[in-house]
Amino acid sequence: MAADGGEPTRIMMAVNESSIKGYPNASISSRGAFEWTLKKIVRSNTSGFKLLLLHVQLPDKYGFNDMDSMYSSPEDFKNIKHKNKIRGLHLLEYFVKRCHEIGVACEAWVKKGDPEKVICYEVNRVQPDFLVVGSRGLGPFQKIFVGTVSEFCTKHADCPVIAIKRTAAQTPQDPVDD
Amino acid sequence: MAADGGEPTRIMMAVNESSIKGYPNASISSRGAFEWTLKKIVRSNTSGFKLLLLHVQLPDKYGFNDMDSMYSSPEDFKNIKHKNKIRGLHLLEYFVKRCHEIGVACEAWVKKGDPEKVICYEVNRVQPDFLVVGSRGLGPFQKIFVGTVSEFCTKHADCPVIAIKRTAAQTPQDPVDD
Repeated sequence: MAADGGEPTRIMMAVNESSIKGYPNASISSRGAFEWTLKKIVRSNTSGFKLLLLHVQLPDKYGFNDMDSMYSSPEDFKNIKHKNKIRGLHLLEYFVKRCHEIGVACEAWVKKGDPEKVICYEVNRVQPDFLVVGSRGLGPFQKIFVGTVSEFCTKHADCPVIAIKRTAAQTPQDPVDD
Repeated sequence: MAADGGEPTRIMMAVNESSIKGYPNASISSRGAFEWTLKKIVRSNTSGFKLLLLHVQLPDKYGFNDMDSMYSSPEDFKNIKHKNKIRGLHLLEYFVKRCHEIGVACEAWVKKGDPEKVICYEVNRVQPDFLVVGSRGLGPFQKIFVGTVSEFCTKHADCPVIAIKRTAAQTPQDPVDD
């Protein structure tokens, strides 16, 4: 029970890795949405909120991440999965550390699959009070070529959703990067 | 300055009248979104937030609301505008009273025009940290026939937007009603 009475507000956040720097770095929009939530919603009321941090890993269909590895036994393939999982956990570590610094409760976990579908599935399972997603803030033309997880979740997640766009200053040279 | 440091988080809320009970009653979705914000976001941190309550009145194009009135001089027409404004103010009174009971700062004002456009215009002018809008939670088929302000604002408002749907228990017999 929160100090201000009642159960804490459970905020689910979907976070992903940077497309520029790769694991374990968080994407610009994930970090932005996370810091925005702390600054604008949680503020000093750290006992009033609990952050539920979900990282969805794309299944590594073709093994491109492991092209420089040698595969000689089934054991090696177990290793790949393990390595990917570790990468995801290091990403979550960044957010969990920040929560602990600030003193806000959190839970973090990794799932595999199609991010937009898994996020909506996890919303149903976990039933947060609302979902925060970072957004690259792409224009309609750019959206034709890339998936926009935030837009899908805003439409389909079974809880209120707030999408936090990157600021102009945070946007990298190629806005599809994150 | 808020007790927890920094400026309070400025939450803009668009509220409208009930389509069933009319003025000065607030719509089900407005009341729901307002109470949700207090319970889930503001919580006990009343000094950390400021609510900016906007009510947009549709221009009464054909004077249907005043069909039982007599018009005999230009003065009468002034009166109509005045009456509509009063109705809008009584609607805001409900929300302002609740804010005062709870001890959260607020500002409230009425604007005339097309709700979705005026809300987006006011977001640009006032620059809130985010916008809360109530939503009837209509299905795709129902949306064909009625405007969905929440969807328009989610796409076009120049700040983060969170749409709060009515619960099944709050939904009236005709879900287009509010």
